[in-house]
Amino acid sequence: MKTFEKNKSRAVVLLSGGLDSTTTLAIAQDLGYQTYALTINYGQRHHAELAAAKRVGEYFNVTEHKVLSLDLTLFGGSALTDQIPVPKESVVENSPSQIPITYVPARNTIMLSLALAYAEVVGAEHIFIGVNAVDYSGYPDCRPEFIEAFQRLAQLATKAGVSGTPLRIVAPLISKTKAEIIQTGLNLGVDYSITHSCYDPDSVGLACGECESCQIRKLGFNKAGIDDPTKYSQETGRVE
Amino acid sequence: MKTFEKNKSRAVVLLSGGLDSTTTLAIAQDLGYQTYALTINYGQRHHAELAAAKRVGEYFNVTEHKVLSLDLTLFGGSALTDQIPVPKESVVENSPSQIPITYVPARNTIMLSLALAYAEVVGAEHIFIGVNAVDYSGYPDCRPEFIEAFQRLAQLATKAGVSGTPLRIVAPLISKTKAEIIQTGLNLGVDYSITHSCYDPDSVGLACGECESCQIRKLGFNKAGIDDPTKYSQETGRVE
Repeated sequence: MKTFEKNKSRAVVLLSGGLDSTTTLAIAQDLGYQTYALTINYGQRHHAELAAAKRVGEYFNVTEHKVLSLDLTLFGGSALTDQIPVPKESVVENSPSQIPITYVPARNTIMLSLALAYAEVVGAEHIFIGVNAVDYSGYPDCRPEFIEAFQRLAQLATKAGVSGTPLRIVAPLISKTKAEIIQTGLNLGVDYSITHSCYDPDSVGLACGECESCQIRKLGFNKAGIDDPTKYSQETGRVE
Repeated sequence: MKTFEKNKSRAVVLLSGGLDSTTTLAIAQDLGYQTYALTINYGQRHHAELAAAKRVGEYFNVTEHKVLSLDLTLFGGSALTDQIPVPKESVVENSPSQIPITYVPARNTIMLSLALAYAEVVGAEHIFIGVNAVDYSGYPDCRPEFIEAFQRLAQLATKAGVSGTPLRIVAPLISKTKAEIIQTGLNLGVDYSITHSCYDPDSVGLACGECESCQIRKLGFNKAGIDDPTKYSQETGRVE
C-alpha cells in the first residue's frame, strides 16, 4: 500500500504523549514521512500528558509541533474534563454498552477535525492517529468504522479533497494488542519512559498505577514480557 | 419528517451571529426546540461577529449559550485567520475549483465536531447549522454531501449514537437562496439589524460593504425586495 512505502510526504500525527500516539509517531517517522505533530490541550486532568508530548516531539525531532488549546471543560461530561472522580476499578470490557465515564464526548472527532485543518494548511495527505480497538476502553470513536467514516468525510470537507488529493486517515495500531504496540515501538527505538498514560497523575506528574489507562499499560508491558519503565506514585511512597 | 414537527426536544444550534445562523436559530425555535447555542471564537478577523452572536442569543432567549475559544490562527491558511487581506472583488462563482482565500480549512468539520460534543453532553439529538449551497462562496464544507457524511460519522462517533439514539444534522437553509433565507427569517420575526455578516468590519464593527460576504448579503436583501438594515461604514463616511 502506498501509505506504508518509504516516502518523504507530509503527515500530521496526533500526539498526546501517551504510549499509543508515541508509537504511532515512531511508525510515521520510520515510514519516512515529514511529521507535523499536533497536541490538543483540551483541559484534561492529566496535564502531565502535555509535558510528555513535548518530550516525545523533541525526541523524534518532528518537523513542526503545534499545541492547540481548546477548553472542553466548558462542556464537561467526562471524568477527564469535569469534576467527576477518575474510577479505579478493574479494566472495563470492550463493549460499546459499557462506555466508561472517562470517555470525552466526541473527542476523536474533534481531534481529527483539527488535524484535518492542520493537514490542509501544511499540505499533508495523511493523518496518523493512535486509536486502538483491541486493548482499549470501549470508546465508540476508536473503532475502524469510525475511522473509515471520518476518511470519507475528510475527502468531502476540504479544498484538497475536492481538488482530487486523496486524504488518508492512518490508524496503524487499530488492530494491535497493547503488547504488540509496545513491541513495535521498542523495535523502532521508542523510549517509553518519556511517555505518559495515567488519567490521574499526582502533583508532580507520576502515574497513579490504578486507573484504567495505567492498568491497560501495565498489562501490556506484562504480556510483552518487558519491564515497564513507568514510575508509579505508589512505588515511590509519595502521599498526596 | 420528525425533525420538522413541533416538539420540545433539545437542539444545539451553531450561532455565528450572521444572517444565516440567526435565521437557522429562528427556525429551530419556531419548531419548538429547546435551543443550546454554540459560538466558536476561532480567532476570526471579524470579531464583531461575536458581539452579534451574543445579541442574537439574548434576542431569542436561548436555553443556554456557550462561547468556546479555539485559536485557529495557530494554523492560519485563510484570509479570515491569517495575515492575508480580505479580497474586495466581485462575488466568486459557486464552484469548488474556485474556493476563495476566505475559506477556513476544515472549519465546518471542526464546528460540527464541537457541536456534537455539546449535543452529547446536554442530550440533544439534533444539531442545526446554517450552511447554504446556493448563494454562497463555494466552500466544500457547505454542500449537502458533506452534511450527510457528517451525520453518518456522528452516529458512529458517540455514545448516544452507538446506543441507538438517531443523531441528525439539520441544515434548513441548504437549498434556499439568500433572498428566501431573509424572507423566512422576517416571517419568523428576525431583526436582521442585530446580525453581522462582514468579513472585514471597521474598528467599531461596521460592515465594509465590499467583501464577498457583504456583497452576498446586499444582493439577498435586494432580490428579496427588502431594505437592508445593515449600517455600512462607507455610508457613514468613517475613514479607517
